[in-house]
Amino acid sequence: MSFSDRLQGIFTPNVVPLDSSGEINEPELRRYVDWLIERGVHGLYPNGSTGEFTRFTAEERRRIIEIIADQTAGRVPVLAGAAEANTRETIQACERYHELGCRAVAIVSPFYYRLSADGVYAYFKEIADNSPIDVTLYNIPMFASPIDVPTVKRLAEECERVVAIKDSSGDLPHMMRMIATVRPVRPDFAFLTGWDAALMPMLLIGCDGGTNATSGVVPEITRKLFDLTLARRLDEARDLQYRLLTLFDAMLYSAEFPEGFRAALQLRGFQTGVGRQPKSQVQERQLAKLTVELQCLLAAEGYTQEPVGGCPAGRVIDPAQLDRIVQSVVGELKKRGLA
Amino acid sequence: MSFSDRLQGIFTPNVVPLDSSGEINEPELRRYVDWLIERGVHGLYPNGSTGEFTRFTAEERRRIIEIIADQTAGRVPVLAGAAEANTRETIQACERYHELGCRAVAIVSPFYYRLSADGVYAYFKEIADNSPIDVTLYNIPMFASPIDVPTVKRLAEECERVVAIKDSSGDLPHMMRMIATVRPVRPDFAFLTGWDAALMPMLLIGCDGGTNATSGVVPEITRKLFDLTLARRLDEARDLQYRLLTLFDAMLYSAEFPEGFRAALQLRGFQTGVGRQPKSQVQERQLAKLTVELQCLLAAEGYTQEPVGGCPAGRVIDPAQLDRIVQSVVGELKKRGLA
Amino acid sequence: MSFSDRLQGIFTPNVVPLDSSGEINEPELRRYVDWLIERGVHGLYPNGSTGEFTRFTAEERRRIIEIIADQTAGRVPVLAGAAEANTRETIQACERYHELGCRAVAIVSPFYYRLSADGVYAYFKEIADNSPIDVTLYNIPMFASPIDVPTVKRLAEECERVVAIKDSSGDLPHMMRMIATVRPVRPDFAFLTGWDAALMPMLLIGCDGGTNATSGVVPEITRKLFDLTLARRLDEARDLQYRLLTLFDAMLYSAEFPEGFRAALQLRGFQTGVGRQPKSQVQERQLAKLTVELQCLLAAEGYTQEPVGGCPAGRVIDPAQLDRIVQSVVGELKKRGLA
Amino acid sequence: MSFSDRLQGIFTPNVVPLDSSGEINEPELRRYVDWLIERGVHGLYPNGSTGEFTRFTAEERRRIIEIIADQTAGRVPVLAGAAEANTRETIQACERYHELGCRAVAIVSPFYYRLSADGVYAYFKEIADNSPIDVTLYNIPMFASPIDVPTVKRLAEECERVVAIKDSSGDLPHMMRMIATVRPVRPDFAFLTGWDAALMPMLLIGCDGGTNATSGVVPEITRKLFDLTLARRLDEARDLQYRLLTLFDAMLYSAEFPEGFRAALQLRGFQTGVGRQPKSQVQERQLAKLTVELQCLLAAEGYTQEPVGGCPAGRVIDPAQLDRIVQSVVGELKKRGLA
Repeated sequence: MSFSDRLQGIFTPNVVPLDSSGEINEPELRRYVDWLIERGVHGLYPNGSTGEFTRFTAEERRRIIEIIADQTAGRVPVLAGAAEANTRETIQACERYHELGCRAVAIVSPFYYRLSADGVYAYFKEIADNSPIDVTLYNIPMFASPIDVPTVKRLAEECERVVAIKDSSGDLPHMMRMIATVRPVRPDFAFLTGWDAALMPMLLIGCDGGTNATSGVVPEITRKLFDLTLARRLDEARDLQYRLLTLFDAMLYSAEFPEGFRAALQLRGFQTGVGRQPKSQVQERQLAKLTVELQCLLAAEGYTQEPVGGCPAGRVIDPAQLDRIVQSVVGELKKRGLA
Repeated sequence: MSFSDRLQGIFTPNVVPLDSSGEINEPELRRYVDWLIERGVHGLYPNGSTGEFTRFTAEERRRIIEIIADQTAGRVPVLAGAAEANTRETIQACERYHELGCRAVAIVSPFYYRLSADGVYAYFKEIADNSPIDVTLYNIPMFASPIDVPTVKRLAEECERVVAIKDSSGDLPHMMRMIATVRPVRPDFAFLTGWDAALMPMLLIGCDGGTNATSGVVPEITRKLFDLTLARRLDEARDLQYRLLTLFDAMLYSAEFPEGFRAALQLRGFQTGVGRQPKSQVQERQLAKLTVELQCLLAAEGYTQEPVGGCPAGRVIDPAQLDRIVQSVVGELKKRGLA
Repeated sequence: MSFSDRLQGIFTPNVVPLDSSGEINEPELRRYVDWLIERGVHGLYPNGSTGEFTRFTAEERRRIIEIIADQTAGRVPVLAGAAEANTRETIQACERYHELGCRAVAIVSPFYYRLSADGVYAYFKEIADNSPIDVTLYNIPMFASPIDVPTVKRLAEECERVVAIKDSSGDLPHMMRMIATVRPVRPDFAFLTGWDAALMPMLLIGCDGGTNATSGVVPEITRKLFDLTLARRLDEARDLQYRLLTLFDAMLYSAEFPEGFRAALQLRGFQTGVGRQPKSQVQERQLAKLTVELQCLLAAEGYTQEPVGGCPAGRVIDPAQLDRIVQSVVGELKKRGLA
Repeated sequence: MSFSDRLQGIFTPNVVPLDSSGEINEPELRRYVDWLIERGVHGLYPNGSTGEFTRFTAEERRRIIEIIADQTAGRVPVLAGAAEANTRETIQACERYHELGCRAVAIVSPFYYRLSADGVYAYFKEIADNSPIDVTLYNIPMFASPIDVPTVKRLAEECERVVAIKDSSGDLPHMMRMIATVRPVRPDFAFLTGWDAALMPMLLIGCDGGTNATSGVVPEITRKLFDLTLARRLDEARDLQYRLLTLFDAMLYSAEFPEGFRAALQLRGFQTGVGRQPKSQVQERQLAKLTVELQCLLAAEGYTQEPVGGCPAGRVIDPAQLDRIVQSVVGELKKRGLA
């Protein structure tokens, strides 16, 4: 496999819009796909954690891929989440998504049961040996069995079909250890980070891209952060990374995941509907409050109007101020011979 | 609801025998159901963690309940694992299992995503408000979102349909806190422990029973431990609890769960088949080694023959010796006025 | 070593009363020692976690043992916490406490750094090989490097001086695994639980006693729970265990440990002084609120007056009601042939 | 306080050489101080975790600072670890280290007991309000109570004396959250990372420097990594960061911390002596093996001779190769318009 086939760039793990009956809102999903591609995301990643793959039935998961593959129509690569109840079902999904023209599948490490490293290896090995389509490992230790570095190395060496890992641990040295271990033996193997809060530094230490939930809400920012980082325009990139962190934290920590992302996408003009995980009255109120905060954050970035009543001054970090401070530090350090 | 409807006793979370194609082995499953009932388990609990509910498709999960409900034919109550992809699917499963005559359903707390206490509450509330069948909460914090004591209390108070909790944390003070909090307001609410290692002490502090994987392999022992404990024959019960712990640990920790239980059941004469989670070569060898150990443990209990080559002396804890030691301690303490 | 030397009963990990300058309040400490012994605790355990050994200097720790050994004057055994900065200092403390006539020392597993099992072994081995006094291992995994079962076994087999383990994990099956492993090879080895919430079940599965912080506040209850359990008066014991759990939880979880115990002891009539760990204003208010709650709990047990304004009805679990409920369960189960 | 007083650069948390009696080896410690300063470290940080402050007595800790302050003689700032048994003792240490001319003290968050955020706040507040010398907070959540972002903010706002935080969590987004929160209100507040594995990315997102154990062994590399990063020579910096990671992991994970650093420093020509934490025979053998590995790693960097028998080819990551790979990625991305 040549280098040019390597997965790279920002893949959007999309929220699935639902209609008033709680069913997949196909027209809105299609409109969302176009909107994302127009805003420059490098690929799509349906049936990820943001896409709540566990809350859809097997039929619905297949339908989501069908819609997205059809609507994408080859404009960008599709990385299809394909984890099913067991390896046989998963391999069948791989076959189906291969027929649909997806670029690769992403398979989350076994969850519910916490498997040993050997069990994780055996699981991916069986899938990779029987899949007609490239496989991306998906490591998300807060939700699923961790994939450790030796296991990634072993799979990378033994399975040509395994071409990438998406790592959502946010652990930068862990990413470096994987790159240092795997890249010498598999230069075509891609490393994608799922932790938006560290996208810039992850790219700087050698990642090829990310599968970042923020890119489903503010694709303009996530894409620009990717471009600025690759272009080594570090001051602008760092400024943007801080702003993205603010948005990421607000969406991630203020509501049951991924409801913050669903609410923010609604603010961008999509009918995202009501999520399938029920909410308590307390949670309903929290989500309403979060929506106002998100509206202020998005308004500060120019992506929506301020809410009625306006936004409190200083609520949002002043990026220019932050930038000035950082610049002055670097300047001072240089002056004093520390750099 | 009167006291006499309360769930109590040992409910067996059964392994699902598979045939050589990896499909549900229906004749063997039916034979297994009869065997369990004949050996005195108080109820059956299909589609639990031991039953690997996540590794079957939705159709297969329903089929498992149909077979077990049919084969049981009312001889013992069936507690049907009914967690599906989302609340709508789960409620449909509740309706189906109600029609099949199941006594109650058991719903594991939301997994993969780790929900807040409020999210866990909202999830069970929606199900309980729409279920035609009694609901047992299933708390297994090592695999799923934890259900905390205030949430159990809230659900017990608000939802008549919620009639029990199965707790697999093995945390004895946690169980006591739940009992102290819920029993005064809901005397009909049952507490079942899923942690075989602490069955006797759990019963002594007020539990109504257990859903214990060992009862699927050595129903004679688990049932006898229940009876001895309730009869306050503490020395015999403690002896049995120690022996059950040895078996439980061997089955639980020496292979990827629940493969140890699958292997042990094979030794009891059932064609359990090959589990759906693939195994590495190292794991295959470990399982073969475990099988010999289990055979020795089961032989020591009189449930199977020793393996060819025999068993090492002293490999199994000598229960009589343990009992003598414990007795002497109590005697000595009494002599010295400490008891 | 004969059985009769074995550590057994309730050892009180005492709070250290401080005077208005924050110094050790020696007269109050001496009065407290007498009070505890009069109320029936089987031994004293100074310089434990409740005794805040880390917040005293090396000189102060030695002084505390001197006072307690002197005041006890052989009436009950003293188990002296002897962990110092390194093994040399610790061994010197062992020598000193041996001279003072202490029954044994207790050494907490290395803390701050989290050591491997091998490191924990090497640490205790060096101390045990050089100590003139018996050594109790102290396992408290929430604060210090865990001591696993194979390490306990290894030390028990290799070091005659190691005569007991105090385990504060509260993990009942873990305690059973230690007992099953060590007792056959060292019948003189004692097992003490530091987790008051599970004292009764721990004794029932074979523990020899406990080092329980509640015994420093309500020695009457902890001692009686020990006696009732050993006498197999299970219904009374369970009732008392539930009441002790309520007290334990209130003292443990409502303030920075061990401030809840310090406040409760003040209510029993001792000038415990202000703890050395500073408190925020929020924490001061929480402690005041906790003190009222504790006063109600202690008043319900008859150990103090109700606070001005009285106590809310039903605030305290009604033990009689609880007992009635449990009794009815057992009776019902027997009637239905389940026991 | 003006910007120019801000802590910055690499502060070395030094190992303490011991003599054959296990006492502080003062001549070797003085020689080590000179060696470090000559190799360009910006400051010294005695009595840190690498300096095993918990394994020395209070007198020894004071003596270590005295030696280092005397030997440094103002050539570089000294950041003195000053945590003692309680706040009174700690404040006395602050006074003493102030007299000795130390630049600031570093106080680790309370350990053994795990305090709440409020407790951590109250602890540092009392110290800061009474210290004559600037205070650096030390956050090392794997060993001590975590210091969360709101607590850092609160202390930064209320206490002028608190001028920096050393964070050893290695969590990059956490560092960004602290910087985004504190820098606008306290531009003179410094952020130092204690996690060598992420030094370059930490500096790139705004850290002022690090307290890095590797700088005690290979000060040439750590210092150069700092300089290259500040100079934005990213390719060279990343190469060095990967090489530092290899060294860091070898020293950190192959022996009980900080024995790997002690062994490596021995290879640089210092009589570091035998650590105070006893070692099992297995650990002795592991350390001997690690020493050979470290010798190969240090030889590859040109800091020592290869061990007798030589080093296996390819054992060390080829940095040139790594660099070529990373460069080609960036080039390719630019060619394809992705950057």
